[in-house]
Amino acid sequence: MRFSARNILSGTILKVTRGATTAHVVVEVAPGRILTASITTEAVDDLDLRVGMAVAAVIKASDVMIAID
Amino acid sequence: MRFSARNILSGTILKVTRGATTAHVVVEVAPGRILTASITTEAVDDLDLRVGMAVAAVIKASDVMIAID
Amino acid sequence: MRFSARNILSGTILKVTRGATTAHVVVEVAPGRILTASITTEAVDDLDLRVGMAVAAVIKASDVMIAID
Amino acid sequence: MRFSARNILSGTILKVTRGATTAHVVVEVAPGRILTASITTEAVDDLDLRVGMAVAAVIKASDVMIAID
Amino acid sequence: MRFSARNILSGTILKVTRGATTAHVVVEVAPGRILTASITTEAVDDLDLRVGMAVAAVIKASDVMIAID
Amino acid sequence: MRFSARNILSGTILKVTRGATTAHVVVEVAPGRILTASITTEAVDDLDLRVGMAVAAVIKASDVMIAID
Repeated sequence: MRFSARNILSGTILKVTRGATTAHVVVEVAPGRILTASITTEAVDDLDLRVGMAVAAVIKASDVMIAID
Repeated sequence: MRFSARNILSGTILKVTRGATTAHVVVEVAPGRILTASITTEAVDDLDLRVGMAVAAVIKASDVMIAID
Repeated sequence: MRFSARNILSGTILKVTRGATTAHVVVEVAPGRILTASITTEAVDDLDLRVGMAVAAVIKASDVMIAID
Repeated sequence: MRFSARNILSGTILKVTRGATTAHVVVEVAPGRILTASITTEAVDDLDLRVGMAVAAVIKASDVMIAID
Repeated sequence: MRFSARNILSGTILKVTRGATTAHVVVEVAPGRILTASITTEAVDDLDLRVGMAVAAVIKASDVMIAID
Repeated sequence: MRFSARNILSGTILKVTRGATTAHVVVEVAPGRILTASITTEAVDDLDLRVGMAVAAVIKASDVMIAID
């Protein structure tokens, strides 16, 4: 499958934190570079996401902001 | 300034592509790891964004999806 | 590939409208049910999106609002 | 009321799952076509959302991605 | 119509800037408090949006970030 | 720090409601004008967000919709 989303960063799951309906999944996409995803707990179960798994973090370009000092 | 957004990745601008109202800014956040941001052309002018500039790509956790093979 | 995004609706492209950097892609996901996606023109070229193509519209649950009369 | 959001799909609530602050609302927008919305529990109470209710799922075009096989 | 979106701010259109597919609409929601919306040009035409019009800016809570100095 | 996000509204925190992973932060950005942000509980702890604090609500233009009666 290929996406229109411009940002697809492969990485490894470092941590999964579950709430009642929302879970946070922390992914290392490069040495010392981590991304946190906030997804449904349903998705965590559906994809059986666990620490150590190889995944991709997918982000639409319109959801990326730029900041400067 | 500090953000509630969990994803703040420092990097360097590789490319800026302008449309009439929307611009795409490509940022290298790690060797071979690029992020594309779709922002307003007003923001590009306001922040005077240019190739080679040091910036941060900012992404809310709720805008990050996870995909698996 | 499988996604954490909860909304994946297969359909057929009815129309592609290009701007300088942003394109609109109209997808029929059920008889008389259409979805419009606003994506980068780069993605349209990258995925070679054309009228009549079978695609999936992918939407994160956190991007769906509910309205009532 | 009319919206700038291009995607307004009427449907019926099939399921409401509440967390402490976030709820998931599953809406059937066409036979076998469901959308999941992740909204605040406050909104569920405010709109008194219940199974069987007629609602609209509202999605901004910029929040829709396209995927192809 | 009522929304699950928690942020509905009434205001007046100060400016509309059109691109090929995307338009920016500037809305004053309180004295000196403006919001910029990036919407499709199709929506601008569909809602016949013009300077001076009374509108509401609608924002999902999950799209609002918090920053501190 | 400066942002590409076009909407930066300073205000004061009126209320913080915590869930297991997601928190709602209500900010008054003008007399009687409030914004609700849905952010991670991690961010609330990280920024030590409390009632009465001066903050900014940050919203990307592409996340703002327009509605008319």
